[in-house]
Amino acid sequence: MGGRIGDISAPGRVAAPDEAIGLDELALAARNHGLPLEAMRYDLTPAGLHYVLVHYDIPATDADSWELTVSGRVRTALTLDMPTLRSFPAVTRRVTMECAGNGRARLSPRPVSQPWLVEAVGTADWTGVPLRTLLAEAGVAAEAVEVVFTGADHGVERGIEQDYRRSLPLPVAMGDDPEVLVAYAMNWGPLPPQHGSPLRLVVPGWYGMAQVKWLRDIALTDTPFTGFQQAVAYRYRQGADDPGEPVTRIAPRALMIPPGFPDFMSRARVVRPGEVPLEGRAWSGHAPVTKVEVSTDGGGSWSEAELAPADGHRWAWRRWQSSWAAAPGSHVLSVRATDADGRTQPLSQPWNRGGFANNLVQRISVLCLENGQAFTA
Amino acid sequence: MGGRIGDISAPGRVAAPDEAIGLDELALAARNHGLPLEAMRYDLTPAGLHYVLVHYDIPATDADSWELTVSGRVRTALTLDMPTLRSFPAVTRRVTMECAGNGRARLSPRPVSQPWLVEAVGTADWTGVPLRTLLAEAGVAAEAVEVVFTGADHGVERGIEQDYRRSLPLPVAMGDDPEVLVAYAMNWGPLPPQHGSPLRLVVPGWYGMAQVKWLRDIALTDTPFTGFQQAVAYRYRQGADDPGEPVTRIAPRALMIPPGFPDFMSRARVVRPGEVPLEGRAWSGHAPVTKVEVSTDGGGSWSEAELAPADGHRWAWRRWQSSWAAAPGSHVLSVRATDADGRTQPLSQPWNRGGFANNLVQRISVLCLENGQAFTA
Repeated sequence: MGGRIGDISAPGRVAAPDEAIGLDELALAARNHGLPLEAMRYDLTPAGLHYVLVHYDIPATDADSWELTVSGRVRTALTLDMPTLRSFPAVTRRVTMECAGNGRARLSPRPVSQPWLVEAVGTADWTGVPLRTLLAEAGVAAEAVEVVFTGADHGVERGIEQDYRRSLPLPVAMGDDPEVLVAYAMNWGPLPPQHGSPLRLVVPGWYGMAQVKWLRDIALTDTPFTGFQQAVAYRYRQGADDPGEPVTRIAPRALMIPPGFPDFMSRARVVRPGEVPLEGRAWSGHAPVTKVEVSTDGGGSWSEAELAPADGHRWAWRRWQSSWAAAPGSHVLSVRATDADGRTQPLSQPWNRGGFANNLVQRISVLCLENGQAFTA
Repeated sequence: MGGRIGDISAPGRVAAPDEAIGLDELALAARNHGLPLEAMRYDLTPAGLHYVLVHYDIPATDADSWELTVSGRVRTALTLDMPTLRSFPAVTRRVTMECAGNGRARLSPRPVSQPWLVEAVGTADWTGVPLRTLLAEAGVAAEAVEVVFTGADHGVERGIEQDYRRSLPLPVAMGDDPEVLVAYAMNWGPLPPQHGSPLRLVVPGWYGMAQVKWLRDIALTDTPFTGFQQAVAYRYRQGADDPGEPVTRIAPRALMIPPGFPDFMSRARVVRPGEVPLEGRAWSGHAPVTKVEVSTDGGGSWSEAELAPADGHRWAWRRWQSSWAAAPGSHVLSVRATDADGRTQPLSQPWNRGGFANNLVQRISVLCLENGQAFTA
C-alpha cells in the first residue's frame, strides 16, 4: 500500500454547478469561524468572536523562547527575542481584518476552499513594532526589492509542502500608509494562539493572507518572491491558466446586523410591524468609506444611511445606522458601501476562480409578522 | 405578500441518503465553531478555541445592570445583581463541555442541524456560586420537583418562538455529584459574550444543552417542565413520533490530536516513517475514564494507551499518550475511551433522529511518505 500524494492533496477546483458543500469544506468550516454578525455591535471584536482562518495547524509556540530573525539583503542580520521586540517604541492601530475568501460560498459556481458566506471579518487593536523600525535597524541593502515573511504553520497545499510564507513589495513594507506592524498584542493582551501567538504581521487595509501569523523570519530579497501563497494562491484568475493579478487590499463592504430575532435552522429573521432600527459596519482597504446605502426591497431602491463620524481609526470599520418601517410580509434587506475612491459593491457576483474578494451585497431575509400574529407549535 | 411562518421555520428533518450539506447547515457552521483538534494540547482551552454553539443570537447584555431572579416554588423570591452573586462563597471547577450534537454530521442519514464532525468540545475553569447555595437562600418549597432556567437569547425553532429554557430535576439541581454552578467567570476572567456573559449555568458532566447561557431566571416548579428544549428537542428518538428519552450526561469519547501536518483542503495528515508520538484527551460524564485504546489499522486491532494520572479534576478531560511506528503507506488511526461504568465507544453509529451523542470512534487518515519522498508541484 503506497503513499499517494494525489489522494490527499489535490489541485484547486471549482464545484460543479449543482454540487453541494462537501465534507472537506465542512471540516474547514467547523475549525475556522466567522464573526456572528450580531457581534458587530462591539467596536472592538471580543476574544473568540473575531474571524479565524488557520491554513494548516495552530503551531505549538513558546513566547519565552521565540526568536524573530531578519535576514537576507540587509546590512546586519538580526535575531530578536520578545523582550527586545518590546523594547522598541510601540504603536497601536485599530484594524478591521477580512479574509480574502469572504463571500466565496455565495459564488456560483463555487470555488472549493474555506466556504465563507459573509462573516469572515473582525476588528482589533493591534500593538507592536513598526516593521520599518526593524528594517531600519537591520539596514536595507540597495538591491532589496521585496520582504518575505515566514510563519511557523506547516502543511501541504495542492501538492506543495510549505511553511506559510508571503511577501510585500519593499515600498509597502517601508511605507507609512498603511504602516505595517510586527504585532505582539491584540486588544491589549498577548496574542491568542489562533491569532499568531506570540508574533504576527499586521498590514492594515490588506486582506488576511498578508497578515502572516506565528512570524519567525523576515527576509529581504533581490528578486520578487514566487512561493505558493504569492504566485499560485491568492491571485484573481478567471481560469486555471490565467496568471491573474495579486490579491492585495480589501474591497469595500458594508454588513448589517440582522434585525429582529432568528429562526434556529434557517437563520431567517423575524420582526414585528413598526420602526425597526438597522445598524452595522462598513469598511474599505482602499480609501475611507464615504457612503452607505440600505435597501429594504431586495435592491430595487436604496436610501442613504447615517454614517458615524470619523473617529481617527482610518483602518477600522465605521458604524452606520438607519431605520425601517416594517410592514407585514417577506422582505429582503441589503446594504452597500462606497469609498472615497468611488469603489462600491456589486449587485452581481465578481467571480474569480479562487473565490476572492466577493463583496456582492449582503441579502437578509426578514419575515414581518402581522400585528398580534404569533408562532405556534 | 403575507408572512408565512412555515417558510422560515420548518419541522425537524433528516437529510435524504444522498443529500449533501445545505446552505442552512453551512450558515450555522460558519457562525458556531469547534475546537481545532491540535488545541487539545492545552489543558485549559484558550479563549476563542473552546467550542461555541449559540441557538439564536448572542444577546446584548450589561453586567452592571444584570439581575438574576429566583422565583416560583420558593419561600422567598430573590433578585440578585452581580455584586451580590459575587458575595457568596465561590467555587471553581474544571469542566469539559461537549455539544450534544457533536458527531451529528458523521451520521447516515444525517439529521439536519448544526453539522458537527467531532470537534464540539472544550475545557475551562468555571467560577461561580453553587446553585444549591442560591436555592437554599430562597428556600425550596416542599412541592417543588424541577428547576427551570431561562436565558436571554430569543428566537424561533420549528415554529415555536422562545427564550432558550431548560430544566433540571430538583435532586440534580441540589446535588453535589456534580455540583451545579451559576458561573460568572471562565478561565479566571469574566465570561465572554458567546459563553453567556455575565452569567450562565454549568452542569459538570452534562452535554451543552443543560449549560444555559445569559441566565436571567431560575424558577422552581411543581410539575415537570415541558418546554420545547426539554420535551421536543434534545431527546433520543428513533422516529418523529417516538417520545424518546432525555439527553443528559456526556457519553465517553477519546479524541486524538491529528499527528504530523495537514493538507489544507482534505485535512488528511502527513507523517514521515518512524516513531510518531500520539496524544489526545478522553472524557465521560458518567464515570471517570479508566482505559484508552488506540488503533493504527482502521480498527482491526487495539492497544492500550497511557492515561495521565488523575489530577483531581473529575469533570475534565484526561490526557493520554501512545506511540506509533509509522511505515510508508495510507493508514487510519482511531482511539476509544472506556469509563469506570464500562461504557465505551461504538464502532458502528449510534443513530438517533436528533443526531445526539454520536460517539462513534474518530477516524484520522494519515499518509506516511517513503523516506526521502517529498511533495512537489
